[in-house]
Order: sequence, then C-alpha cells, then structure tokens
Amino acid sequence: MTEPIYDDPDFFAAYGQMPRSVHGLAGAPEWPTIRALLPDLSGKRVVDLGCGYGWFARWAIAHGATHVTAIDVSQRMLARAAELTDDPRIAYTARDLERLDLLPESFDLAYSSLALHYVSNLSGVLSVVHRALAAGSRFVFTVEHPIYTAPRSPEWQRDRSGHKFWPLDRYAVEGVRTTNWLGGNIVKYHRTLGTIVNQLIGAGFTIEHVRDWSPTPAEVAADPALSDELERPTFLLVSARR
Amino acid sequence: MTEPIYDDPDFFAAYGQMPRSVHGLAGAPEWPTIRALLPDLSGKRVVDLGCGYGWFARWAIAHGATHVTAIDVSQRMLARAAELTDDPRIAYTARDLERLDLLPESFDLAYSSLALHYVSNLSGVLSVVHRALAAGSRFVFTVEHPIYTAPRSPEWQRDRSGHKFWPLDRYAVEGVRTTNWLGGNIVKYHRTLGTIVNQLIGAGFTIEHVRDWSPTPAEVAADPALSDELERPTFLLVSARR
Repeated sequence: MTEPIYDDPDFFAAYGQMPRSVHGLAGAPEWPTIRALLPDLSGKRVVDLGCGYGWFARWAIAHGATHVTAIDVSQRMLARAAELTDDPRIAYTARDLERLDLLPESFDLAYSSLALHYVSNLSGVLSVVHRALAAGSRFVFTVEHPIYTAPRSPEWQRDRSGHKFWPLDRYAVEGVRTTNWLGGNIVKYHRTLGTIVNQLIGAGFTIEHVRDWSPTPAEVAADPALSDELERPTFLLVSARR
Repeated sequence: MTEPIYDDPDFFAAYGQMPRSVHGLAGAPEWPTIRALLPDLSGKRVVDLGCGYGWFARWAIAHGATHVTAIDVSQRMLARAAELTDDPRIAYTARDLERLDLLPESFDLAYSSLALHYVSNLSGVLSVVHRALAAGSRFVFTVEHPIYTAPRSPEWQRDRSGHKFWPLDRYAVEGVRTTNWLGGNIVKYHRTLGTIVNQLIGAGFTIEHVRDWSPTPAEVAADPALSDELERPTFLLVSARR
C-alpha cells in the first residue's frame, strides 16, 4: 500500500517548501524535457496519477485538455489542489494507485510525475493504464531513477580529489527501500531500468523514449547545483504508446 | 575508429586466459539469459558483430542457422576463429564496425556480444543493422552496462561495514572512457541507457526486452564471485525487433 506520509502534517509542511511545491512545474528542472515528450493536448482527456497539488492538471487544461482526472492518495494534497482551482474540468480524485481502476479507453493521455516508485504493484498499474488509454495514445511518466533508488546509503561521497560520486550498490536487489526525506520515513520500491521497460512492454506498450534525465549546459549555468545530475541521474523519464 | 588492441600480442594472450575465452559461451555467465532472447535459429541467416573467436557463430550453425557472417576487426581473433572451424557456412570477415556495410534484408538475426561499446558511431551501426535485417527479425546484443562504463574510477570500494559499492559518477557525460584492462589501454564509448534505447528506436527498431543482467540465486551459489553483479550490473542485454 502507498504510504500516506504526504498526509503527515510535518511532512506536508516541509514538502510545501520545496521549489517544485512553491513554483510548480517551473520549479521542476526536468519539466522542459517532460513537456517535449507530451503530445498536443487540444481536445485530450487526461489522467494524472499522483497529481499532488495539481500543477500538471491545471497546465493541461490551460493547454487545451478537455478534462483531467487528477488522482492522489493524499487528502491534504487534494485539499490544497482544490484550493488552487475549482475548474470543473478537473476531477480531483482520492485513490490509492495500488487500487487504481479506470474505465477502458477513456483517456487520450496518461501522465504521472514521481509517483510510481511508491507503488508496489507496478505491473498492475501499467495494465490498468494501458486499458484506460485510447489506441495510439501515450503514457508519459517520471519516476525516481533506479540508480537513485538502489543504494543502501543514498548519500553523496567525495573522493580524495574532492569529486562527488554516488555509492551504488544493491542495483539488482529489487524491492522496498526505506529512506528519510524531509523528516519522514519514505517507503519506495526499487526496480531496475530493465524491469520498468519490460513491465511496460508486458502491459502492451511500445517504448517511444527513455531518458536518464540530465541538465543542459545552460541549465547548469543557471543553477550550478544541477551539475550533480551529471554524475548520476535522479529522474527517469519515459514515453510509451498504447 | 575501433582500437586494434585485440591485435596486440600481450593483450591477445591475456584475453585468451579469460574463462569466456577458454570455455566459450559456457564461460560467459550472461549467456543463458542471452540464449533465452534468441529466436529458433533453424534456417536463419545470421550476422555476428564482433565475433571474436567465433563461439557464437559455431553455436548458431550447430543450432540450425544456414549461414553466419562473423565480423571482427581483429585479424588475430579471426585467425583463431578459423583454427577452431573451417565450416563453409561461417564467413569470417575482417571489418571495423565503424565502417560496417551489409546488404539490405540479407539476415534473419543480428547478434553482438560486448562489442558495440567500442564503436564511436553507434547510431550508424544501428541503421546498417536495421536495413540488413528482414522485416520482423531480431537484433539481440549485449554491451557493457552504462553503470559499468560511466565512472572516472571504475573500481570497487568498500564502506565501513565492508560492503562493496561502485563509485558511480559522470553517468550523463557521454563519450570516450580509457581504462586499463588485461594490461592494455582500452578505449570505450560511454552512453546512457536512454541514449542506447533511443538510438535503437531512432533507427527503426521496436524494443522487446532490456535487461540489466544479474545472476539468479542458483548462479551465485555456483559461483559466489557473481554476487558482485547484484551490486551493480556489468552487462546490458537488449532484444529489438526490426
């Protein structure tokens, strides 16, 4: 089951201070790359899995989507999302992704940002999403990269020359990872990149694009902290077609 | 250009002592997984890119292939391969993969084991292979895994508890890596996993299977040194369809 950590008041408050919470999509460095993977949204029916504050749902409506079903397990997240808009074209929906159920061929785009690594039954979610999409439409999603989720001790280290490196281990050992983040214990599910790709293919998707996200030189110049992402990826971006 | 290190006498002699040189396919721990990705070879025309001693070419003929074009840049490798068989159904061919040229739709399976990380122009090779395959046929290959090729210092380290970890850095910095192996300087080309997948898709392939290779518990029990592969992968296995 997805941990309801996002409903913990302290965690929720800390999460609210993050750049991507304050600034929305513009606070997420990987957003321009995700956006380039999205189709034209005009007239599209969209489902957003793990919508959080609803930034993407509102963006999708602003870019022509006719309707967004925006799903999250956290009541606090959905309450905050509802405060930010009462647009009737967005249906904020409380649902644990572990028990996702969607009507067949009811959407023209499925989207998910940094939510599926909280799901134990990924292949189940992928099957539901595949069935819920109209033929030819896309599932664009991000998860924490397997390199990021794998280690026993996911903390930067430095070599004698002062270069940062990431102490990778347990890459092939799939399953639960419990880490401390924003003062809360977070339960995530580590899977290899191959497993993620193969589960998509097994659900019937065709892989269109896979990106171990890293910043451009211009992005690093604008935000030097992003240079860490050149050493090891935090985000995996995938586009797949039904 | 591919480094002709395999034609260096000392390197060639050291390479000849490796388990996979002495025992062929049976000496390669990833072989059973590769084999499971291969189609029935009966009646198939096969091209092997980077054939080395020709172990796979001979295996393919023994399993029903009608013809194998077995390509390698190293004259010493091909001379050794020719010593091991004079089967007229195998055409050992000296060619740098950087300048690969194959007739259109002339093969029913393309295979490559641990060769394409030596190639600077991967997308060029993939285009040639795609064109050379009959519609619906497969390209099954392995390369050194991006996690394995990326680091500045690709050597195991141990934490205070004695656990091995792999000091990953420079993952997003694609390009040349020069390492010392078997007493020789080896030039390899590091690419992210996303780049490899996207170049296949760009060449027209459909991704069928991606595997960050790791051993089964039984394989680790039989060869405890393989447990390193649970910490970080050495081999990336891919099956793609034309």
